[in-house]
Amino acid sequence: MTVPRLTTALAGPLPDLERRLLASQADTEHWLRGQWQDRGAPFYCSVDLRNSGFKIAPVDTNLFPAGFNNLNPQFHPLCVQAAMSAIEKACPDARGMALVPENHTRNQHYLQNLVVLQTILRNAGVNVRIGSLLREITAATEVQLESGAKLKLEPLERRGNRVAVNGFDPCVVLLNNDLSAGAPEILMNLEQGVLPPLHAGWTVRRKSHHFAAYREVAEEFAKLIGIDPWLINPYFEKCGKINFQERKGEECLEGFVAETLDDIRAKYREYGIKHDPFVIVKADAGTYGMGVMTVKDPAEVRGLNRKQRNKMAVVKEGLEVHEVMVQEGIYTFESVDDAVAEPVVYMIDRYVVGGFYRVHTERGQDQNLNAPGMQFKPLAFADPCSSPNPDDPGCPPNRFYAYGVIARLALLAAAIELERTDPEAEKTEA
Amino acid sequence: MTVPRLTTALAGPLPDLERRLLASQADTEHWLRGQWQDRGAPFYCSVDLRNSGFKIAPVDTNLFPAGFNNLNPQFHPLCVQAAMSAIEKACPDARGMALVPENHTRNQHYLQNLVVLQTILRNAGVNVRIGSLLREITAATEVQLESGAKLKLEPLERRGNRVAVNGFDPCVVLLNNDLSAGAPEILMNLEQGVLPPLHAGWTVRRKSHHFAAYREVAEEFAKLIGIDPWLINPYFEKCGKINFQERKGEECLEGFVAETLDDIRAKYREYGIKHDPFVIVKADAGTYGMGVMTVKDPAEVRGLNRKQRNKMAVVKEGLEVHEVMVQEGIYTFESVDDAVAEPVVYMIDRYVVGGFYRVHTERGQDQNLNAPGMQFKPLAFADPCSSPNPDDPGCPPNRFYAYGVIARLALLAAAIELERTDPEAEKTEA
Repeated sequence: MTVPRLTTALAGPLPDLERRLLASQADTEHWLRGQWQDRGAPFYCSVDLRNSGFKIAPVDTNLFPAGFNNLNPQFHPLCVQAAMSAIEKACPDARGMALVPENHTRNQHYLQNLVVLQTILRNAGVNVRIGSLLREITAATEVQLESGAKLKLEPLERRGNRVAVNGFDPCVVLLNNDLSAGAPEILMNLEQGVLPPLHAGWTVRRKSHHFAAYREVAEEFAKLIGIDPWLINPYFEKCGKINFQERKGEECLEGFVAETLDDIRAKYREYGIKHDPFVIVKADAGTYGMGVMTVKDPAEVRGLNRKQRNKMAVVKEGLEVHEVMVQEGIYTFESVDDAVAEPVVYMIDRYVVGGFYRVHTERGQDQNLNAPGMQFKPLAFADPCSSPNPDDPGCPPNRFYAYGVIARLALLAAAIELERTDPEAEKTEA
Repeated sequence: MTVPRLTTALAGPLPDLERRLLASQADTEHWLRGQWQDRGAPFYCSVDLRNSGFKIAPVDTNLFPAGFNNLNPQFHPLCVQAAMSAIEKACPDARGMALVPENHTRNQHYLQNLVVLQTILRNAGVNVRIGSLLREITAATEVQLESGAKLKLEPLERRGNRVAVNGFDPCVVLLNNDLSAGAPEILMNLEQGVLPPLHAGWTVRRKSHHFAAYREVAEEFAKLIGIDPWLINPYFEKCGKINFQERKGEECLEGFVAETLDDIRAKYREYGIKHDPFVIVKADAGTYGMGVMTVKDPAEVRGLNRKQRNKMAVVKEGLEVHEVMVQEGIYTFESVDDAVAEPVVYMIDRYVVGGFYRVHTERGQDQNLNAPGMQFKPLAFADPCSSPNPDDPGCPPNRFYAYGVIARLALLAAAIELERTDPEAEKTEA
């Protein structure tokens, strides 16, 4: 795997916000340590960020991250160390782990991600076997990848209250499958631990829950370092009853779009920002950049044509969209070779372990870059996110540090979100 | 700082022991996780290893490691991540830290170590000020280093039950001073936490306590992976009443030397090893390679001349030697450009964060390489210790993994040793 190495997508001096994040490092780390004192971090997580120069914020938080193959291989030891910490906390007694992947058998990028993930976990000291949910995998199946690596997919089997991988009895199940099709029977009511928990899957999870938790986290953090929370937090509204096919709920959506655009416009005025505000309308559940549109005028969501409606109505695994989120759009002013770029930050346990730029030659600064069928070029961060140098304001690790901070705020929000939506916790309270 | 990068000092296929360590990775990591469940790791630690091909073992475990400047700068993020974990466990509330260094003001290597250590801790999110014990440091003193870095030494001051660094009130004190001269008044009975604890200092600590704990750890671990514990554990005896100047206790020493040489000879026969056994006689307290001699014949310790006796009688800070340890000598069969080399592994919290080879052109395979006045050339490990590849038996990270395992056994022994010698714990039990 060769990874192009550029220093950073944004050139030029660090904008105010990044400088402020850098100057607050000791306070930030102290505060984050405190936040993690009484809550566990998700096993792993990737966060899509947007950086408009005046604003850096998460736009998507993925609890089943793929793309570990896109990280700089030099960061591999960081991943291993963080995985050791995650295993120590989540399943210290684990010797064996079943890794349950997405149902892809031909997507080379995804399979390469599994190879890297398996290597990380093995180096952290667990026996890992890949337990596929695919019906066609009935016996150990070796896949030869273009990278030269080999991957063994084996059937995940149910045995009473446990799952096994082709006879191997794991202590813990690690999901790298976002459960867009719902939690499968085979994973229900297991004696073994399942990480992340089933309620982190996209049939249960809602982006709006996440961003509600993120809003609280961002407000507290902004207060700590003395900034306007808007600088790290995108406005959003939730529209809970929509049916694109039947054209129901369009007025409600239009209203939220108008409201959000007005709010952004006011902030742009406050900060003297000369751009057109825009919002992203996206399915409240689901991922892979399906069911996403950029809107600059409320009227646009009223007059959707059939094609646009079809595009918004269904996301991955045929999940129907009835709830959407209207989220402030954030321009990405980072670019690589004239192509727009957005940073994606990877975390294992509570540690930032790397990241990459999603680089798109065919998309604009106001468009979602994680879109199906779109080729993006991953550009691994050349430096880790943990080594800023306040004495050298222009150095790339400073920008990466800022990204690492915002990504960890999103991680913290995800931890709070998972606590709040835990069905077991609700039972206990009732 | 440019660090020469060689793959590994030992070329050729992995010997049996390393292969066994590699094959047992999942069991080893599982067992280590279990060991750390109910005990804290020292904040940091470096371990000198010797590798004779048939045997790998620790010969010195340093709880106040200097030499962070010798690590591969690429490992810096690993150090930061491990320091975050150490701080989280030892002093989660800490914002500010006083780093108390050795009393060197001109040793460029040591001062550069402080620069690196301070950067690691700052990147982990604590405010670090260097609080010197030197009387001559009465105000903030900036030292310009040859590397271009600047270092600020400030006076450590006592204020009631707390220490401050030139007015800065730290939450915790991190010692990078091995207290060979005894724990100074200024550090006694502090309200602030002191890491490592004062009883880890060389006026209290005994190598024989450490190696007694190591023996137990090695025996348990050897049983786990099914090897002879001798392959990772050097024989040792303690001789508690010696006075080199007055020539007292020489018979006792001679007896232990003879006994240890006999034991080694028996093992060499068992394994068909064709080398001359030797022992290292060294002060039971103290460091810096002072008070160390190589002995191949018991008669050698009887007929010590004045110069030899003087050399053994006193170690760093004038500490008198009355207790010595007789330890099995381990040949180092690693070499770099025909110079003998021994690996030194660095850990922060329970994580291996790097290492280097101490390379000596003027010493033999049976001599201590950490000697005062001797120039050694540090050779940073090019690869971290956490990324072995069982499918590629010759790759250097496999050797480094083996080193990382043995070093962590020594770390575990140090944790047990510190528990057992904790004066507070004794009080509680009484």
